[in-house]
Amino acid sequence: MAGSSFGEMLRITTFGESHGEAVGVIIDGATPGVELSESDIQTQMDRRKPGQSSVTSPRKEYDVVHILSGVFEGKTTGTPIFVILHNTDMRPEAYDDIQYSFRPGHADFTYWQKYGIRDHRGSGRASGRETAGRVAAGAVARKLLANRGVSLVAYTKEIGGIRCESFVESEIERNAVRACDPEAAAEMIRKIEALALKGDSCGGIVECRIRGVVPGLGEPVFDKLDAELAKVMLSIGAIKGIEFGAGFAAAGMLGSEHNDPMDASGFLSNHSGGIVGGISTGQEIVFRVAVKPTSSISVPQRTVRITGEEQTIVTEGRHDPCICPRIVPVVEAMACLVIEDHYKRLAAMRD
Amino acid sequence: MAGSSFGEMLRITTFGESHGEAVGVIIDGATPGVELSESDIQTQMDRRKPGQSSVTSPRKEYDVVHILSGVFEGKTTGTPIFVILHNTDMRPEAYDDIQYSFRPGHADFTYWQKYGIRDHRGSGRASGRETAGRVAAGAVARKLLANRGVSLVAYTKEIGGIRCESFVESEIERNAVRACDPEAAAEMIRKIEALALKGDSCGGIVECRIRGVVPGLGEPVFDKLDAELAKVMLSIGAIKGIEFGAGFAAAGMLGSEHNDPMDASGFLSNHSGGIVGGISTGQEIVFRVAVKPTSSISVPQRTVRITGEEQTIVTEGRHDPCICPRIVPVVEAMACLVIEDHYKRLAAMRD
Amino acid sequence: MAGSSFGEMLRITTFGESHGEAVGVIIDGATPGVELSESDIQTQMDRRKPGQSSVTSPRKEYDVVHILSGVFEGKTTGTPIFVILHNTDMRPEAYDDIQYSFRPGHADFTYWQKYGIRDHRGSGRASGRETAGRVAAGAVARKLLANRGVSLVAYTKEIGGIRCESFVESEIERNAVRACDPEAAAEMIRKIEALALKGDSCGGIVECRIRGVVPGLGEPVFDKLDAELAKVMLSIGAIKGIEFGAGFAAAGMLGSEHNDPMDASGFLSNHSGGIVGGISTGQEIVFRVAVKPTSSISVPQRTVRITGEEQTIVTEGRHDPCICPRIVPVVEAMACLVIEDHYKRLAAMRD
Amino acid sequence: MAGSSFGEMLRITTFGESHGEAVGVIIDGATPGVELSESDIQTQMDRRKPGQSSVTSPRKEYDVVHILSGVFEGKTTGTPIFVILHNTDMRPEAYDDIQYSFRPGHADFTYWQKYGIRDHRGSGRASGRETAGRVAAGAVARKLLANRGVSLVAYTKEIGGIRCESFVESEIERNAVRACDPEAAAEMIRKIEALALKGDSCGGIVECRIRGVVPGLGEPVFDKLDAELAKVMLSIGAIKGIEFGAGFAAAGMLGSEHNDPMDASGFLSNHSGGIVGGISTGQEIVFRVAVKPTSSISVPQRTVRITGEEQTIVTEGRHDPCICPRIVPVVEAMACLVIEDHYKRLAAMRD
Repeated sequence: MAGSSFGEMLRITTFGESHGEAVGVIIDGATPGVELSESDIQTQMDRRKPGQSSVTSPRKEYDVVHILSGVFEGKTTGTPIFVILHNTDMRPEAYDDIQYSFRPGHADFTYWQKYGIRDHRGSGRASGRETAGRVAAGAVARKLLANRGVSLVAYTKEIGGIRCESFVESEIERNAVRACDPEAAAEMIRKIEALALKGDSCGGIVECRIRGVVPGLGEPVFDKLDAELAKVMLSIGAIKGIEFGAGFAAAGMLGSEHNDPMDASGFLSNHSGGIVGGISTGQEIVFRVAVKPTSSISVPQRTVRITGEEQTIVTEGRHDPCICPRIVPVVEAMACLVIEDHYKRLAAMRD
Repeated sequence: MAGSSFGEMLRITTFGESHGEAVGVIIDGATPGVELSESDIQTQMDRRKPGQSSVTSPRKEYDVVHILSGVFEGKTTGTPIFVILHNTDMRPEAYDDIQYSFRPGHADFTYWQKYGIRDHRGSGRASGRETAGRVAAGAVARKLLANRGVSLVAYTKEIGGIRCESFVESEIERNAVRACDPEAAAEMIRKIEALALKGDSCGGIVECRIRGVVPGLGEPVFDKLDAELAKVMLSIGAIKGIEFGAGFAAAGMLGSEHNDPMDASGFLSNHSGGIVGGISTGQEIVFRVAVKPTSSISVPQRTVRITGEEQTIVTEGRHDPCICPRIVPVVEAMACLVIEDHYKRLAAMRD
Repeated sequence: MAGSSFGEMLRITTFGESHGEAVGVIIDGATPGVELSESDIQTQMDRRKPGQSSVTSPRKEYDVVHILSGVFEGKTTGTPIFVILHNTDMRPEAYDDIQYSFRPGHADFTYWQKYGIRDHRGSGRASGRETAGRVAAGAVARKLLANRGVSLVAYTKEIGGIRCESFVESEIERNAVRACDPEAAAEMIRKIEALALKGDSCGGIVECRIRGVVPGLGEPVFDKLDAELAKVMLSIGAIKGIEFGAGFAAAGMLGSEHNDPMDASGFLSNHSGGIVGGISTGQEIVFRVAVKPTSSISVPQRTVRITGEEQTIVTEGRHDPCICPRIVPVVEAMACLVIEDHYKRLAAMRD
Repeated sequence: MAGSSFGEMLRITTFGESHGEAVGVIIDGATPGVELSESDIQTQMDRRKPGQSSVTSPRKEYDVVHILSGVFEGKTTGTPIFVILHNTDMRPEAYDDIQYSFRPGHADFTYWQKYGIRDHRGSGRASGRETAGRVAAGAVARKLLANRGVSLVAYTKEIGGIRCESFVESEIERNAVRACDPEAAAEMIRKIEALALKGDSCGGIVECRIRGVVPGLGEPVFDKLDAELAKVMLSIGAIKGIEFGAGFAAAGMLGSEHNDPMDASGFLSNHSGGIVGGISTGQEIVFRVAVKPTSSISVPQRTVRITGEEQTIVTEGRHDPCICPRIVPVVEAMACLVIEDHYKRLAAMRD
């Protein structure tokens, strides 16, 4: 299909363009009878929204959550939950300059090649704004998972070459880059601010830990749990790689180092990242994603126009000099959707 | 669904256990009227089969290809192509020792937790043998892609810390590790042989390049081309990570470095790996996967039995001390299936 | 999945309850670059809306179409088209009486059994109002099909035992029951009005003819064209049966009568209804659906309350004494979606 | 996808042509740990096989069941169950005459139009032989359903205008036409034998009753239980219509007649056929399908050759003069697959 849907038993479908009238999501298959309020979703939307700090885009989207179906008297009914987020701070005219040009790093060229038509305003459907619907859906999954005793946390591990050395979970939401090491966070912020002044951007690494999952999640061949997580993470625009547990470092390890031994108390290490043979072990699931530097920069770059004419382009606008802090809630949301979906698939398999 | 199927318009379903009677695949949706013979598939099977050299498992599976449906008078008919590979060199009794134990790094524990029953013989369904059906299906997709002018090559980039410095494509199939640098290859082989003597194993990195694709492949939101490739690659048992283009290195780059500029002749660099916004640019698609060290080692390891009792385990058997060379054709096969599927999806979208 | 989505390459997902805030649909996979306006959809919505005549529900829903995404400068962009229809004439309090009762013929009992919770207001998700989204989506498919030279017409064939004897296509939209025989139509209207006075309802038969399709639509095994049409038609609440071509009459025919012979000019009859082996022949596709009498009647009926207590129930409210005329555009919409989807699947197969 | 797969959580994929080497099925998603033997499947295969009596095709296919994966030590493992049935009584040369002709009523013309190539031998994939794989898969589902207390029976209700007046369940498998009324059965057999002598064929009606289902099966919008049953039944080659409960007769009923009232003991009638709003009520599920007369007849018929040349054709071969008795086990098999799949979907929804 056209690709705007994800999930097997808990299935979401998103719609909306960056500078269209609204973005949103239909969530189909949520367990009925679960308490769900707009504020459950709003909490997560607020973590994703722009304008939170000096290191994020100054666009002002309040992203006020409206649930238009699927919830009755404060509880899910088992029917599709529809969440709409009206766009408010749209400035489509700001994009008139780029209507006929391909911005480097952006999907302008590929959309044009694929469709022969594109809503160029703020990247249209290719905008990070599409993830608003994902975060709304993820908030519903998070609520369902909480009832199962599953929780998760994502955070910035590295930005612009600066790497977190400590892991202080309580600090993550207290700094503007959502880093797990407050000292590294301060350094990261300085680096981003300096780059922003030059109109440049930088990338980073985000790590996610999922706790409390039962062993047995994930299907054994194509729909392995790590395969599904890899798919949804790579479906986030700026993400260019993923690794589980030891990940790429496993390439340099011996089998006798990488294998996780067990004793009567359970696993003695977690190089697998909590997934073996595509199925959860019950340990913490750990993965990291590579986040590319934001494509929108005001440093002059060479490109061409739709007509083929060469030009130098400077992408003005209200952009994030580093998208890591805002990707954190998106990573969490997508992880929640995959895990909740696989709980339901496990129940179906065993029934 | 239960996860043994993959693909939207070109859809494959595999079956079979390592030491059962047969493994195989149904390929549904292949373009009709295309010449296809058993030898087209056999060629790829021969690249994957064990017993090819000193660095692979000595198990002797000839993997003789039988096409039982979907081909008539040498051409595809548009109906399901069924390929069966009878297992011949089965030694299920060799696994009697591990029937009630969980081998570290293997899916023994997770299958047990998920299903409460398992075919323990040679890892059953979790065995790398399941990929035989994938390679057969990939051979069909490869044939279809050749008609489109698409070709691809995968190869070992790194093994046990030894990294290829040169890229000599013609050398890849000439060395036992399928490395792109013959000097590195020789060193890798020595390293693997030394480890094999100790009963240990090592991991590596495999890279894949896909050439000749049109721009426009990939769906823009969840079914991005890189997301789909990530899913199928992580669905290969030993793979623990994937990165596209600059990949994890992008985390340390500036936007002004990572963005690929264009001039009238096209893109001037390929940090994106040939995919932007989830859609192919028409450049070479480049990705790398992290391969963990083979789990089956004869170094003693701590583990537990199904009963919870602790034990020390030594995994005997006929195993690959490094799986990279045999993963190469599997990576190619899965890439072919994804690319061919997306060609068909593109045709459907435009129709 | 949870079942609110339909279609493979052109895929729709509906949401919304009868007396919630809105109903609507996401249409994913529509061909890009096609002219589409809200009035294209409004035309079809107006055919479905209540309050059109003495034989339909007096509820006043203007069903004003809003397209919130997927259309840019008057053309489809290939991204999801989102259509929302705000509910306006909601009277949820009218349903307070039935909150704890199961109305005969309604899905009150089955929803309660399935979910343990239900939005009882106007049947919630089980209401015919859900079809508003389908008609909106069908209008998009109809537009795409028009470009292929495909057209279709559905109409009432029989109501309350009164059967159309003639087929005058131009009369269909001129009478309140959308019958193809104006004389039968007058009689049907009299019958419905008489039943409405008694608080009772009646059923009928709707026929659909699809013209201009190419031969070759439909997949050969499970996704036969007639199988897919059967599914979507039976997915319309009031429909209890479907037959193609000669249909149930074929049960009493000989092979020598039922087989459609050919000569050089083509088929000489159409007992198959234009589909053989699940694939379109290129002839007119003809099928009929059985429409049950509307469940909402004010004749007293025996039922039970959620608590198990017996009661006599009288369903008041603004209901259709015969749903056939309003089912006509829904049947057309669903048929358009199936046909358009299969055109795309055919293109993918051949590519 | 290409259409050879069916089901969401319990998913089957069939392959094979009538006169190819084998037909068969992969069943993915069956509950693990359930006892399953080849004889469980053989029993159902024997009911479907040709050569059972004077009223069925004399082709001799023993359809010996081989399970090649997914069962270990007599129990399902949760991995794909692969069942193969080797074709033995193949006479492809018998079809040489029709290689370049379109037999009336057969899918020869539509396959040719769709694919431009076809395996003409015994209708290839379009043959009723494809249903062998379905019956094998259905036997697995039947076993799973028995553990849930669900049973079902299908039988001939009408053949060639002769209708069963009584319902004697114990007689169904005792007569060659599988009719529920032994007197009608005798008359049907005489009629079929007389037609067979003339080289003609006749149609009929098959009814199915499913007992012991819980209320709550079926998804509320597109994947209604009756919609899914309609799809799979119409996916059986010879079936041209389906109706649930009162079915087409509902078109002539009043709401006050058709609605099923309730008292404290449950429903007082079953005009709905056990499904309301697409969800099972817990009553017996009842539906009927219209079976067309077999297309293969030796009465001379007009047709054309691939070249467009007109001809008179006489279809020789070993055919069933009435397919109803052999369709009975296919209807049961497909019903089992749908019901079992929806049990699993219900479990997933509630989890």
